[in-house]
Order: sequence, then C-alpha cells, then structure tokens
Amino acid sequence: MNIVFIGAGKLATHLAVELTKHSFNIQQVYSRTDSSAQELAKKVNSRATSDIKKVDTNADIYIFSVKDSALPSLIAEMPVNNGLWLHTAGSITSDIFKGHVDRYGVLYPFQTFSKDRQLNFREIPIFIEANNKNDLSLLENICLQISDKVYALPSEKRQYLHLTGVFACNFVNHMYAISQHILEKENIPFETLLPLIDETASKVHSLSPQEAQTGPAIRYDENVIQKHIDLIEDPDLKEIYSLISKNIHKTNKS
Amino acid sequence: MNIVFIGAGKLATHLAVELTKHSFNIQQVYSRTDSSAQELAKKVNSRATSDIKKVDTNADIYIFSVKDSALPSLIAEMPVNNGLWLHTAGSITSDIFKGHVDRYGVLYPFQTFSKDRQLNFREIPIFIEANNKNDLSLLENICLQISDKVYALPSEKRQYLHLTGVFACNFVNHMYAISQHILEKENIPFETLLPLIDETASKVHSLSPQEAQTGPAIRYDENVIQKHIDLIEDPDLKEIYSLISKNIHKTNKS
Repeated sequence: MNIVFIGAGKLATHLAVELTKHSFNIQQVYSRTDSSAQELAKKVNSRATSDIKKVDTNADIYIFSVKDSALPSLIAEMPVNNGLWLHTAGSITSDIFKGHVDRYGVLYPFQTFSKDRQLNFREIPIFIEANNKNDLSLLENICLQISDKVYALPSEKRQYLHLTGVFACNFVNHMYAISQHILEKENIPFETLLPLIDETASKVHSLSPQEAQTGPAIRYDENVIQKHIDLIEDPDLKEIYSLISKNIHKTNKS
Repeated sequence: MNIVFIGAGKLATHLAVELTKHSFNIQQVYSRTDSSAQELAKKVNSRATSDIKKVDTNADIYIFSVKDSALPSLIAEMPVNNGLWLHTAGSITSDIFKGHVDRYGVLYPFQTFSKDRQLNFREIPIFIEANNKNDLSLLENICLQISDKVYALPSEKRQYLHLTGVFACNFVNHMYAISQHILEKENIPFETLLPLIDETASKVHSLSPQEAQTGPAIRYDENVIQKHIDLIEDPDLKEIYSLISKNIHKTNKS
C-alpha cells in the first residue's frame, strides 16, 4: 500500500516511520519547507516535494499532518485523485474534505510526539473516522497493524478527546514547567520532583483522579493556600494557583 | 530507637510502616480519633492513645504528622520531654517548636501518599532540618536507612518545594480529574488517556518541560483555543483553560 504524507512535522515523522516498519510504502513526502520534506523522505526512503501541485495522484492513502490553519488551502490546492484522504487533527471535523474528494476520513493518534522520543505505537490509541463503511474498514485494518487500540469515533466526540489531551498533557506539562522555574530560582534540581511526578501519573492507573487527590486545596487549608499565593511573584501565576485551588475544592464538595 | 507518631494519617502510616521495616520501634501512636490511632498501632505492633497528654515522655523521636492547623495546639499540649521533635509539613517552619522543646526539626518526604499504594521509599526524596548539628546528623542517618535521597534544606526553601509539589502533583491530578469528567460525559473511557498521561510524565525525565511542550497553546492556535473554550460549559473551567493557555504562550515567548 502506497502512502503520501502531506506534512513532515513530529506527528507525521513518528507515524511515517512506524508505517514503514509494517511494510507500508511511503511514496512521497510533501512539506512547505523543502528541507523538512527531504529530512522525512530520507528517513522513510521516499521522495520529497515542496510543491503541493506536484503531489502524486496514484497513491492509495494521503495523510495530512499539518497545522490546523494550513489544512484548508492545502486540501484546495492538492491535485484531485481517487485515494483516501485523511487528516490527523483533533479538533477538525472530517467534512473539511467534503466537496474536494470522494473518499476521506481521520486518523488521530492520541499521544504527544516529540523529536527523538521512542514510543511504543502498539499502546497508542488511534481514533478513526471515514465517510464510507469500506474505507472505515480499510483504515481500521491499516491502524491495527501499528496499534492494538483502534477506535471509530465521530468528529463531534473527537473534539472533546482533544480537549482532554490539552488538559492532561499540555496543561500538565505546563504545571511541570512552572515548578521547574520555581525550583531553579531556589537552586533545587528539577530531578527532585520526578518521583512525585511519576507517582501522580501512576496513581490514576488504579485510583480515579478524584480519589487520588491530596494537598492543601482538597483540604481547603486556607493558611497554606494563602502562603503559597504570597510566595508566587507573577500575578498571572497567583491567579492560576487560586483558580485551580478553588476548583479542586468545589469539585470535591459536589 | 523508639519513635512516637503524633497523627495516623496517610503520610504517618506510610512512614511508620517503612520505619518498622528497618527495625525502628514505633513505641506509641497518638491520633485525635481513637480508631485511627488503633488502626495504625495495630499495623506497626504499637500502642494507641487519643489523649495527647498521655503520650510517653521517654521516646527518642516524636514525629508530628497532622494537619497544619492542628500542629500548634498539639505541640503546646504534649508533655515536654528530651526527645527530638519533628514535623512532616511542607509549609511550616521548624521554629514552630521553639520555646516548647530543646531539640526539634523537620522530616519532609516529598511524595503524595494514598491509602493502599505501595511506594518505593528508597526513591522518595526526604528533606530534613534540625536546630543543632548532632540532631541533623542523627536525622540524616535515620532517613538514609529508608531512602537514598536525603537532603538538608532550610524552611525558607522547603516552602518553595512544597509549592512546586502543589503544581506538579495536586494541580496535575486536577487536570486529570477535569479530563475524566469531560470524557465521562462523552462515554469515552478514562483509560484512553493513560498512554498520554504516562508519556507526558516520562518525557520530562529526558527533556525539560519547556522543550517537551506541544499542543495548541504553545503554537498559539487561536482557532483551536477558542473552539475548546466554547466546548467547555463551566465558566470557571473556561477561565482556567484561557489563563493557562495564555501563560504557556507567554512563557514560550520569553
């Protein structure tokens, strides 16, 4: 099966490399930036282009993995063909393809992708969608070769999934970043925090997050909460601390 | 070495159980609630009391592990003796003991403790403090028997450490709780989120949190950010989403 990648970012790279391990052929890689297209093409033994109009029209699958804002114009400019067009975006409905191409859908791997991180793709949940039964079945079969966790999910629900990804990954990571910044100022190594970070993540495998909660906010220990707000210099962070503490308390009461 | 525990909560229980594994004797357990005192005493083959005035005066070490707000009155009411008095609170200075007893300090294990969670104590950083060199050395030796990571840290710095614990554990856990709530409404199992939660925690072992960041906030993708705020029903959560997104963007620019 021949696949074209539109985009050569972190998600595209992880996905393309994984697919080649399972004997899919990455026929071509497009990126707006020629060097990025070349870099991914080299990794997966493919050809590169930075001209969307020169994308091959004879591939089986086209995977768009680009910034949300770049997607509409790329779809409009790409030569029409008979392949199955897919995007990998959490918050864009599948019908962004409607009117441009007959066969389309979504392949959304629910994970955070960084350069040089090895990931076990078998563990990554992949949420799929297609505008006809045959293509949904085709897409499921493709995804099951790289992951054990493949689920059909309509666009309306996928957007909520994406939202939880922002809370449980991006915002969590920002809590780590805030902590690192505070520790650096006190000359305490960030490594000190890793056992706590790991246990916090590990706990919710066996307890619900609500059962797992500890600390001053859930006890609504106003003394500690006020001391902490006084320790924080940045007014925006004071506000974030205060709002999340109140929300923990409110959630626990209800 | 004979130890008395003042308090029988989650931290006290984990610590007392661990100390008994390393041949410390838990001589007595006090808790305001008789059944809690009994429960921990039974676990560590000790005696229980719910009368602070009946605490033994001949032990070597007294570990206060109670709510911050309960600490001052317990210290004032407990019979004075020649033991080393310690508390386990992140945000209370060691001199809360001053004037009540000659030998005092802090034993602060930097971890989140839940009932029925097995923890590897050797990995838990313990931050210690004492009002004289001999007791600091004694305390260090005690802690090194249960953990490989024992550090002397003054109260002023410990309060910042505690603050980062709130961000990196309690607030992180609340991000998980918010996510669970959203997923439940969409009938998507919370387990779906676990690979993302694990990878987010795992990443910061090898990348700094700032390098590890992904998602709409760091790209400042205002379309997705606005879509997500529209999806959230609770006005407090809308505000939390918006504030953290702005803060991620601000941190990234600076």
